[in-house]
Amino acid sequence: MKDARVLGVLGGMGPLAGATFMQRLTLLTPAERDQDHIPSVLWSDPRVPDRTAARIAGGEDPLPWLMRGIRGLEAAGCGAIAIPCNTAHGWFDGMQAATRLPILHIVEAAADELLRLGITGGPIGLLATKGTLAMRLYQERLESRGHECLAPPAEEMDRVVMPAIELVKANKVSAAYAPLAEAAQRLVARGAKAVVLGCTEIPLGISAGPALPFPVADTIDALARAAIAWAKPAG
Amino acid sequence: MKDARVLGVLGGMGPLAGATFMQRLTLLTPAERDQDHIPSVLWSDPRVPDRTAARIAGGEDPLPWLMRGIRGLEAAGCGAIAIPCNTAHGWFDGMQAATRLPILHIVEAAADELLRLGITGGPIGLLATKGTLAMRLYQERLESRGHECLAPPAEEMDRVVMPAIELVKANKVSAAYAPLAEAAQRLVARGAKAVVLGCTEIPLGISAGPALPFPVADTIDALARAAIAWAKPAG
Repeated sequence: MKDARVLGVLGGMGPLAGATFMQRLTLLTPAERDQDHIPSVLWSDPRVPDRTAARIAGGEDPLPWLMRGIRGLEAAGCGAIAIPCNTAHGWFDGMQAATRLPILHIVEAAADELLRLGITGGPIGLLATKGTLAMRLYQERLESRGHECLAPPAEEMDRVVMPAIELVKANKVSAAYAPLAEAAQRLVARGAKAVVLGCTEIPLGISAGPALPFPVADTIDALARAAIAWAKPAG
Repeated sequence: MKDARVLGVLGGMGPLAGATFMQRLTLLTPAERDQDHIPSVLWSDPRVPDRTAARIAGGEDPLPWLMRGIRGLEAAGCGAIAIPCNTAHGWFDGMQAATRLPILHIVEAAADELLRLGITGGPIGLLATKGTLAMRLYQERLESRGHECLAPPAEEMDRVVMPAIELVKANKVSAAYAPLAEAAQRLVARGAKAVVLGCTEIPLGISAGPALPFPVADTIDALARAAIAWAKPAG
């Protein structure tokens, strides 16, 4: 696919998030027929070693697996890469240094999504993996935009948030709704004006139940909007 | 991806059907963690010329576009190909003759789905594109298994079924539910024991409303089950 803006999607982390990214990319694209949609290639390799385990428990380095996917997307003729996995962005600099293709950064997309929601400053709740929190992927970027980041305490991360993320990866999506909705609610009770769903499994769980009564920045939708802006630049 | 059974998915026809196929492939796979899921590559090129227009209105031949995708999936290291578009199977023989990779046939998968539903003979309703009906992709295969195929009359195809398929391709999925559900109901009123949703846009529309009160063979799910059986053979 060499004659158009073809989007490369490095997915599989997890696979349901990657597939849902493709669905949201399609549904958010203005289109009247197949041929109006964005050509894209999804490289869905769920064998990439666990990103949180790699960062905080000495697990296998995912970077060689991530680079294998990027080489596949380059060979397919893609012009940019979107990675619907927040934790994988801990290896962003290594990936970006190794490819000439621009990689759309999911945290920048999430920050833009907050603006789109009309949230221009103040405390923001952050639901993410322990790896994403430990690597501080969100904290500096959001603080530079005038936000303070509130995350669940470590005990709640272990007891509630990480098990809920695992439920989604095990296809038990509906069961993830209640714990994630309650964790988000507790961040709002602590003063958050909005909650960033900063792990792409989390919006899948949150979508399985009633809409939350406060603003949330869904990082799957945020990255899809960034990809559409890349593929179909205005003007 | 050369060291596992990697599934190639020739999608984009339409793109929402391809993305939903990836989602259903994931949700139907027995898995407890990311690494249990099936490595796969989705080649989503929505620019493939319209299949029904090619077959019945002298439109551009889609085969060169289909072959471009197959070459991309071969290069990515895939071991088999699934095509979540029924009408594209009108070019099945040409594609299969040109690649060493096995292509899973969506009509065989649909026939297996009828068996899974306990339907072993008798009249079957068929909702599909005009192209699929004109190419008789289902009729011979289902008749050889003891089924008679009932399709909507030509006037209803033009007035109801084809416009509903176009609604899905234009992201107006909910609006497609009522016309498709009513067309399926009319086939059951004519004696069909089950209805094959023989265009991958149709289960998307049908999923947007209440479940139908008769058996339906969803060709997205049927092809996903065939792909899982290929990737994870029993025993």
